[in-house]
Amino acid sequence: MSARQVKFCGWGYEGEGLDATEEKLVLGTVAARFGVDGFERKAAPKPDDITLPAPRVAAPGDLAGLVSADHRDRLLHTYGQSYPDYVRMFARDFAHAPDLVGHPESEEDVAALIDWAGGANVAVIPFGGGTSVVGGVEPAVGDGFAAVMSLDLTGLDRVLEIDRASRAVRVQGGMRTPALEAALKPHGLTLRHFPQSFEMATVGGMIATRSGGHFATLYTHIDDFVEATRSVTGAGIMETRRLPGSGAGPSPDRLMIGSEGSLGVITEAWLRLQDRPTHRASTAILFDDFFAAAECVRQIAQSGLYPANTRLLDQNEALVNGFGDGRRSVVVLGFESHDHPVDAWMNRGLEICRANGGHYDAEAARDPEGHKQGAAGAWRSAFIKMPHFRTAQVANAIISDTFETAITWDRFREFHENVMAATTRALHDATGRAGIVTCRFTHAYPDGAAPYYSFHALGRHGALMEQWTEIKKRASDAVIEHGGTITHHHAVGRDHMPWYARQRPALFGAALKAVKGTLDPHGIFNPGVVVT
Amino acid sequence: MSARQVKFCGWGYEGEGLDATEEKLVLGTVAARFGVDGFERKAAPKPDDITLPAPRVAAPGDLAGLVSADHRDRLLHTYGQSYPDYVRMFARDFAHAPDLVGHPESEEDVAALIDWAGGANVAVIPFGGGTSVVGGVEPAVGDGFAAVMSLDLTGLDRVLEIDRASRAVRVQGGMRTPALEAALKPHGLTLRHFPQSFEMATVGGMIATRSGGHFATLYTHIDDFVEATRSVTGAGIMETRRLPGSGAGPSPDRLMIGSEGSLGVITEAWLRLQDRPTHRASTAILFDDFFAAAECVRQIAQSGLYPANTRLLDQNEALVNGFGDGRRSVVVLGFESHDHPVDAWMNRGLEICRANGGHYDAEAARDPEGHKQGAAGAWRSAFIKMPHFRTAQVANAIISDTFETAITWDRFREFHENVMAATTRALHDATGRAGIVTCRFTHAYPDGAAPYYSFHALGRHGALMEQWTEIKKRASDAVIEHGGTITHHHAVGRDHMPWYARQRPALFGAALKAVKGTLDPHGIFNPGVVVT
Repeated sequence: MSARQVKFCGWGYEGEGLDATEEKLVLGTVAARFGVDGFERKAAPKPDDITLPAPRVAAPGDLAGLVSADHRDRLLHTYGQSYPDYVRMFARDFAHAPDLVGHPESEEDVAALIDWAGGANVAVIPFGGGTSVVGGVEPAVGDGFAAVMSLDLTGLDRVLEIDRASRAVRVQGGMRTPALEAALKPHGLTLRHFPQSFEMATVGGMIATRSGGHFATLYTHIDDFVEATRSVTGAGIMETRRLPGSGAGPSPDRLMIGSEGSLGVITEAWLRLQDRPTHRASTAILFDDFFAAAECVRQIAQSGLYPANTRLLDQNEALVNGFGDGRRSVVVLGFESHDHPVDAWMNRGLEICRANGGHYDAEAARDPEGHKQGAAGAWRSAFIKMPHFRTAQVANAIISDTFETAITWDRFREFHENVMAATTRALHDATGRAGIVTCRFTHAYPDGAAPYYSFHALGRHGALMEQWTEIKKRASDAVIEHGGTITHHHAVGRDHMPWYARQRPALFGAALKAVKGTLDPHGIFNPGVVVT
Repeated sequence: MSARQVKFCGWGYEGEGLDATEEKLVLGTVAARFGVDGFERKAAPKPDDITLPAPRVAAPGDLAGLVSADHRDRLLHTYGQSYPDYVRMFARDFAHAPDLVGHPESEEDVAALIDWAGGANVAVIPFGGGTSVVGGVEPAVGDGFAAVMSLDLTGLDRVLEIDRASRAVRVQGGMRTPALEAALKPHGLTLRHFPQSFEMATVGGMIATRSGGHFATLYTHIDDFVEATRSVTGAGIMETRRLPGSGAGPSPDRLMIGSEGSLGVITEAWLRLQDRPTHRASTAILFDDFFAAAECVRQIAQSGLYPANTRLLDQNEALVNGFGDGRRSVVVLGFESHDHPVDAWMNRGLEICRANGGHYDAEAARDPEGHKQGAAGAWRSAFIKMPHFRTAQVANAIISDTFETAITWDRFREFHENVMAATTRALHDATGRAGIVTCRFTHAYPDGAAPYYSFHALGRHGALMEQWTEIKKRASDAVIEHGGTITHHHAVGRDHMPWYARQRPALFGAALKAVKGTLDPHGIFNPGVVVT
């Protein structure tokens, strides 16, 4: 485990985050946008503010060293990083704190803990980076269990093997992505999968939740990088054969990918890697019309150019991210390669942009460091800092959250207009005044886009949970009703279950339940998530 | 159904195939290679040669119009297109002929037939193009059933919807690929997935068997083109939501993809399409050393250039396909695009070839029609005609078959040498004289290759089945022992089950069995295939 201490009620590690000046700047911007002159600030909780009941069970003597009942440890494993998680943290509500936190350091430890839990009817919540924004790691498992153990996997943090020829790594499930990148760097390799949770996320957590990463096209989900998996289930070890491709029956990896801890614990994976890019071009293209920009992204996504980045920001998203004039949408277009200069790719990409009415700084578009500068750079920097804003928002009763989806191109306009309208109305109805809804594309496919919506409103202390719940419900209803997926890369967790149940074929739900009966015979793995 | 009559004991439709001159040419080449002056030719079976027992069941009156007990129809649905299928056809062995052949023309028909079959304990073998080379459609289901019905799905042959913006088509599962391409052509679209079985293959069959297609990189399997599926299972309809990407739980489509008819019948799918290419470059590059050529393919596969074609033919494969001098390996490299000239791509691809010792005709490499000419064209033409050779081979006791796999780059050399040696030895042991084993790559991945092996030997009438079985067994053992997959794109069927069982995680097998219990409660779907 890291020498740095993971923060309680905040993103990342103790000592990091926004400083007073940055926080003041953020709050000032929000206040100005909503026409208020300040906020009522609630104090963030401290571990000592909270009283937890004694754990209902204790691990047997031979496992005692792997299990902690430490107060702070239990608090740290009560929530993920979602908006309602923070609201409840600020409300000092830790009703679903786990009884125990498991700290395995090997696959054998994982198996032993699971074995004990199965016999003792203790629910097990696999916990990687703890970055879920959908209630995926919350030990809210109902009354059917003797106790709950959060299983912190960050002790399984080793690179086991690097295959330079195939560009692949065998890595333990609890390894965090920055440590993995550091281990790969000397080999000239990179996973190049950077979810917003990058700093804290673990390999196993990303696989279990089908995380979305760096590449806006082609290798959008971690799914594409998974060569093989090894999991501890309630029925034993399940290890898939390492193969570049196969046609032998349904893919066993694809069953574990997205299972969100409900079928077992991913203890190892072989992941496909990239060479570190040495050629880059990136620039921001402005569009007067949002749908013209979306059409441009469609054409780029269908061009076969496969840009690393082709993210669209609507006019408000652009403004929120510190550039633009609030009237124009932005497409951030970027190419990268370790193998060849990307000029031909960028030139053609820009041609498509021009043909769709995009305009840009021709000089900046040729700057290989463009991805670090200007609009592209601003977006990149805001993206990385985003998770730190949450504490300040909740402290000041600012409602601010995101939801994301995917939709085919033919339905995009109707979908988008309906989702924007439903969310806008919900913000007003829930808070009594106008809020802000913005949209960007995180990923683009030949057959559709992955729109990502952010909403911001002025909430009220004491009512934040109800306000957020109403907004979330109405936005999610709109997403499902108009043909989207309840999640493109944030996962299902506990929060999305009602909409996932509507979206998922009922028979597939039944099939998953049958699988769970086989792999999790005691029904202890992350109860209530994905398989019900 | 097509006005043309599907051929009995032969590829494609009546009236097609090799003419006498072509057949003589092929046989002459084989005779010369093995140093013999001729072959003993057995007559191909005719439907009248075969006696079938009366069907053990009859469909109830309201389904009678959907079910045939016609002699020729039953014969046509007894086998796929594998070498041992033909050996048994020539032996007039139709012991596993289906009792009945279902001919649904709608999803309702499929559901009604399945409903009846479930109640009557009649095994159901979904039958699309009937092109299985792995015993996937053979009604050899053991003694546990009252009867067997082959369910011919080619009556579900309509395009239901085309979405030009998203480049996607909703198509019925029984539609054959040439008809689909013809329907897409006026829209400037193409599925661009051309398995060797292209002429006969159906959409549902390709999805059920994870077929491999045109693109040698990136979109290698049909899996990549599946946007959504709709299936009739034994528990009702299972339809997935049409999405360009999703992170909501394990993928329901990935459960049906590769299920080979064991979980239900794929009646519809949304498939992702391509614009028809307008820019092309293709050429053949010669290498003195096979492993240098493989290394070149590895670098191309990792370059991010994503060629449509980067197929490697070893020296013998090149010779068999009508070019080369039997000493040099060939890489057929091709790029295509509807969006942009591919010069930059081809130039860089050729640079990689040169750096790895490849040589080529610089002028031909710049010819946009190069894919139709020279080595590339010869390969293409041989590839398309290949399925027609089978009848002549079996008639003349020539053993000729293929097997295919995938392996990561780090293990490729050791794997290849072992598989070649094991197969070479097996050919000699089985036939008493030297045979020929050749290798090509059908697909290439950043993390590995999909080698495809062909073997040829002089067999003996009356012993062909045993000879083939010994060779197949020893080749398959070598593939599994040295880390490959028993199939990259030919599917599992009945023939590969013993090796699939070794390759598949035991717990995944148990999970599939649980799924089958849910989706196929009567256990009637393609018994013995994939799920056991």
